[in-house]
Amino acid sequence: MDERIERQIAFALEIDKVKNVFRQTHLSSHGRKENDAEHSWHMAVMAYLLKEYANEEIDIAKVMLMCLIHDIVEIDAGDTYAYDAEGLKTQKAREEAAKERIFSILPEEQRAELAALFDEFEAYETAESKFVHAIDNLQPLILNDSNDGGDWREHGVTAGQVYQRQGKTKLGSDKLFEITDGIIQKNIQKGNLKVN
Amino acid sequence: MDERIERQIAFALEIDKVKNVFRQTHLSSHGRKENDAEHSWHMAVMAYLLKEYANEEIDIAKVMLMCLIHDIVEIDAGDTYAYDAEGLKTQKAREEAAKERIFSILPEEQRAELAALFDEFEAYETAESKFVHAIDNLQPLILNDSNDGGDWREHGVTAGQVYQRQGKTKLGSDKLFEITDGIIQKNIQKGNLKVN
Repeated sequence: MDERIERQIAFALEIDKVKNVFRQTHLSSHGRKENDAEHSWHMAVMAYLLKEYANEEIDIAKVMLMCLIHDIVEIDAGDTYAYDAEGLKTQKAREEAAKERIFSILPEEQRAELAALFDEFEAYETAESKFVHAIDNLQPLILNDSNDGGDWREHGVTAGQVYQRQGKTKLGSDKLFEITDGIIQKNIQKGNLKVN
Repeated sequence: MDERIERQIAFALEIDKVKNVFRQTHLSSHGRKENDAEHSWHMAVMAYLLKEYANEEIDIAKVMLMCLIHDIVEIDAGDTYAYDAEGLKTQKAREEAAKERIFSILPEEQRAELAALFDEFEAYETAESKFVHAIDNLQPLILNDSNDGGDWREHGVTAGQVYQRQGKTKLGSDKLFEITDGIIQKNIQKGNLKVN
């Protein structure tokens, strides 16, 4: 095996570990916790099918790839729950170190490409990044809604906290925020979300 | 919610079930069995990173989407192990019925698009389909190789059977077949694959 493909295959094997990084979200029908690989797969399919709702024109191949790789750093950094204030303080530093180690397994230009794509996701500035964040918010929302808000109830999450996070969905898609708002309101009425 | 987006969100929730369809392949480091969502995620990332090795020019967005959706029918049809001769006889009929039910949750033109993409994958004729099949073969191969061929040993798979399946990787990528061949030969020498 030449060195280039050897590094590519080594990376492919390394990212298998994403399947062992579990999130706080539970699968539908009150299932087990979801892992990052499943979450990323689900996001990429949803992004493709909902692309018509992006506020700005988007490159869908770039969007799908961003969905697929945005959580790879969690192999080292672990998943940080969206409402974990302490964890969020150190998340950036942990993820930067992980990005450096993991993407460096690849040949240099592929390392640079994936690292840049991850940075673009994190920066929340481009049309693609804003749309991927909208999908990253919506995907656990529909699972949690299907489970009567079990994840919110377990963590005592308030409507204010959810709006703070999900409000940014508007940056990527007004239409998906409209859907989000309807789901949040329904869950407030059902008592699944505390109103502060 | 208008009917169009309601159907799209209903489909997004339905495909969550792919995460509960388990394959015969085990995760690296002698892990648990892998599910279809994880497998599809892994394939899409690998297809992107290994696209330079496709024999023919490929549309990478189409390739990634094909990777992501090719196993959705298994929600109803179940996973058919590559070396299960009996299961393979009824696989086609089971998957056709599943395709009809599941993709019909979507708005008509998206149903037609995904059904056509699945049919294209199955037909094994276009450059994209041949490359996706090559990745579909390679992904479990590298996991199994990392586990000392445990999946082959468990099922008593022979080198002939593996070559029959993996030989078709050549249709999509000569280079990936070269890698495949090296891995198979190594596993024959280690006694992980029976030589008929």
